[in-house]
Amino acid sequence: MSSKPVFVVAGLGAGGGTGAASARAFAKEGYSVALIGRRENELKALEDDLKGSGAEVASFAIPSYAHADIASAFGQIHSRFPSNSHSIRAALYNTSHGVWKPFLDVTPEDVQSVTQANIEGSFAFSHHVIKAFKENSIDEVTGKRGILLFTGATASIRGNVTTSAFAAGKFALRALSQSLAKEFGKENIHVAHSIIDGGILTPLSKSRRNNPEWEQNQDARLNPESIAASYIYLAKQDRSSWTWELDLRPAHEKW
Amino acid sequence: MSSKPVFVVAGLGAGGGTGAASARAFAKEGYSVALIGRRENELKALEDDLKGSGAEVASFAIPSYAHADIASAFGQIHSRFPSNSHSIRAALYNTSHGVWKPFLDVTPEDVQSVTQANIEGSFAFSHHVIKAFKENSIDEVTGKRGILLFTGATASIRGNVTTSAFAAGKFALRALSQSLAKEFGKENIHVAHSIIDGGILTPLSKSRRNNPEWEQNQDARLNPESIAASYIYLAKQDRSSWTWELDLRPAHEKW
Amino acid sequence: MSSKPVFVVAGLGAGGGTGAASARAFAKEGYSVALIGRRENELKALEDDLKGSGAEVASFAIPSYAHADIASAFGQIHSRFPSNSHSIRAALYNTSHGVWKPFLDVTPEDVQSVTQANIEGSFAFSHHVIKAFKENSIDEVTGKRGILLFTGATASIRGNVTTSAFAAGKFALRALSQSLAKEFGKENIHVAHSIIDGGILTPLSKSRRNNPEWEQNQDARLNPESIAASYIYLAKQDRSSWTWELDLRPAHEKW
Amino acid sequence: MSSKPVFVVAGLGAGGGTGAASARAFAKEGYSVALIGRRENELKALEDDLKGSGAEVASFAIPSYAHADIASAFGQIHSRFPSNSHSIRAALYNTSHGVWKPFLDVTPEDVQSVTQANIEGSFAFSHHVIKAFKENSIDEVTGKRGILLFTGATASIRGNVTTSAFAAGKFALRALSQSLAKEFGKENIHVAHSIIDGGILTPLSKSRRNNPEWEQNQDARLNPESIAASYIYLAKQDRSSWTWELDLRPAHEKW
Repeated sequence: MSSKPVFVVAGLGAGGGTGAASARAFAKEGYSVALIGRRENELKALEDDLKGSGAEVASFAIPSYAHADIASAFGQIHSRFPSNSHSIRAALYNTSHGVWKPFLDVTPEDVQSVTQANIEGSFAFSHHVIKAFKENSIDEVTGKRGILLFTGATASIRGNVTTSAFAAGKFALRALSQSLAKEFGKENIHVAHSIIDGGILTPLSKSRRNNPEWEQNQDARLNPESIAASYIYLAKQDRSSWTWELDLRPAHEKW
Repeated sequence: MSSKPVFVVAGLGAGGGTGAASARAFAKEGYSVALIGRRENELKALEDDLKGSGAEVASFAIPSYAHADIASAFGQIHSRFPSNSHSIRAALYNTSHGVWKPFLDVTPEDVQSVTQANIEGSFAFSHHVIKAFKENSIDEVTGKRGILLFTGATASIRGNVTTSAFAAGKFALRALSQSLAKEFGKENIHVAHSIIDGGILTPLSKSRRNNPEWEQNQDARLNPESIAASYIYLAKQDRSSWTWELDLRPAHEKW
Repeated sequence: MSSKPVFVVAGLGAGGGTGAASARAFAKEGYSVALIGRRENELKALEDDLKGSGAEVASFAIPSYAHADIASAFGQIHSRFPSNSHSIRAALYNTSHGVWKPFLDVTPEDVQSVTQANIEGSFAFSHHVIKAFKENSIDEVTGKRGILLFTGATASIRGNVTTSAFAAGKFALRALSQSLAKEFGKENIHVAHSIIDGGILTPLSKSRRNNPEWEQNQDARLNPESIAASYIYLAKQDRSSWTWELDLRPAHEKW
Repeated sequence: MSSKPVFVVAGLGAGGGTGAASARAFAKEGYSVALIGRRENELKALEDDLKGSGAEVASFAIPSYAHADIASAFGQIHSRFPSNSHSIRAALYNTSHGVWKPFLDVTPEDVQSVTQANIEGSFAFSHHVIKAFKENSIDEVTGKRGILLFTGATASIRGNVTTSAFAAGKFALRALSQSLAKEFGKENIHVAHSIIDGGILTPLSKSRRNNPEWEQNQDARLNPESIAASYIYLAKQDRSSWTWELDLRPAHEKW
């Protein structure tokens, strides 16, 4: 591969979660990194942080996961990482929009935001990523033109009390990932989906829970770095044995 | 039950399919029927047809499955079937919006229409139905305040080549139905989901396929009346043994 | 159909459960009934009881669900209900062998008994039933040569702490039922599987639980008669719309 | 860890498949290896081969996967790798017994052999492995007392025409693995299950298929070494993020 591989990640929350850890992990593997997210300050902070460790990084703040905003971000990515020197080789759709409410309290706006984060945005993101992948040669080691990763959740496979909206979005995202895996596997494009079944240790979850015991109990919550490690593993799987779906949960999780 | 039970069905296509057969079947069981759909002429024709067989019927044409349009339809339903004489006891969300395309041909409009038909509309419909059910007493025979039915498809459980958008919508609908079944079972509200795994014999499918052999082969396609019969069965299940999900397919279907 | 339809049921426990209720329900539908079970006294009592309501019934006590014992029972059934006057048209494999133990306490004998009840026995039973069905003409109303029903459980789809052995047996039974449904649907043989997700009200469960409140709470446990009603419904489904699997649970069950 | 880690693998076929590749991969990671299988000559050949690459290896031929034979093998393993110097830290149950036949051709002996390979043997194997793991300290890096791996197949999640017996066995094995994962996760014992969805390139499959094109098409069949790599990855997952199940299939597999 003469061109530099690029990893595109959408969905970085407040930073410090799965998206940020994945950006770091792919950077360490030699990828340039394109960060897409809605919080400009947090994106910038993450960009600076990654640059500090020597990575080539650029961030692209978008107002929403509407398809036009995603399209605009990819326009900028292609300018910033032009195809004569770079090629998008890995991508992670990590955005989510958790809504946990009794059903009758779910508003049309909740449905709309869950739908945009999990469906409108993921279709747009996947469209641009798959189109970019199709331009790539097949990597000799992995047999891939690229890998497209999706972060799922328990709600991807199980609806439950208070998760009607969240599960609707996550089920839909899983459907998309399976459809893409089946359609593009034969073009050597690898599509994978993780089911995160437990709480992830992020700055946000720390402040929400305010539970130092939970934070320190490594058997009770997922490290973003460990999730990212699984994405690196998936990216390295060779063409003979690709995984579409794996679950990830803490050792002591009840399930 | 002193008040007359009402069956509300949304999604009647061109008539002659699952929605129409269900309207007919519930009317035969003594329900008044409220028809919600987008095609005014077909709705009227079905309304007249059902009236001809002695049923109390009203139709409510809506421009789209946007939540405001659904809300407006329910406003009219409550006027037409007032709560001093009627109570909504059964409902079927039967609308769909099949899109079968290679992924890269799926447009933002396709995603939007699938999302509206399967998510925005189903959340709005369920909201109004559940709220109405909660006003009901528990039926002595079935132990129900009401039953909310959803029509699913093979694409509800399996993404595939050319079904990315359709499967996203159908997975989401299934997630909603499971979440509702879990949340409202304990209030004696029954929520069920069917997986229609095969082609349904409708005026539309007849004209599309133009295949008299297929039409006449009873082992090869689903009768809308048989699907409706399963919905009547579900509506009659007593509180000790409720089904959330069943699949339905022709005897000779390969699966 | 000039010949009298026969319903064969294996697995009657101590009587008073799903098997007995199904025998009663099919008898009421005009079937002759063949009872297969391991407890001779209970079988006889059920036989007498059913005869009292006017049904043609015979019971066949077997020492175990080993294939030779099943074969021997079918030999006797064919003698008792000869093919010039009778034809096996419906069958229910209802036997189970619940083992709930921490894994390290599961003995080789537990594994063996679970395996025999759920696999060896079900394969033998299905073999004889399918062979009998293949001799039948296709029923004009239902489009069936016969229906083979299996009673499953929550453990059919979910392994759990203390259910390793039970779930192994129940998963296997489900695999068999799905394989048979796919293989023999095209010969108009209907195969269906129920997932009973909750406690069934039987003489045995009553004495085990000794909980009158649970017994009287119709929202909390399954009536065997309601499960049997679902089997009758499945038997009546016409060839255009067959169900392989449905779940059944009490209205208030947490799942 | 002062004691040397031991990897126990049962099910080596004719060698050259997933079991052998896993033995090699774990040996390379510093594990001593215990080989359990039914073919003494092939076991010996594999043992010699592994020794040639510097690994500590011993093989234990057993006449069958009956629990007594498994027990006897573990007795020998404990003698050969005594607990003052070794500890079993990883194990793979890789045995299978594929039977592909129309259902009516499946014999009681087929059912028995599938059952023994997939249930009796797996319960016995797991019993001895879990007991051994419970004696271990928790590894500081991975947070594990040990990892127990199971090799599954497409038939683990889907019954089909001609796979009734095979699927029954594989569904059961999956149930066991899920039950164990749930029961022993909280004791820091990691249990994982792979779903191999495609043909594996082994000496046996080569001779059976006699299809050089298939052999050379890396997008069409699984390399045993790639499956083994996934097992190594699972063994290294840290306690915060464990996978119970992943699927593995060739890039071009239709599914």
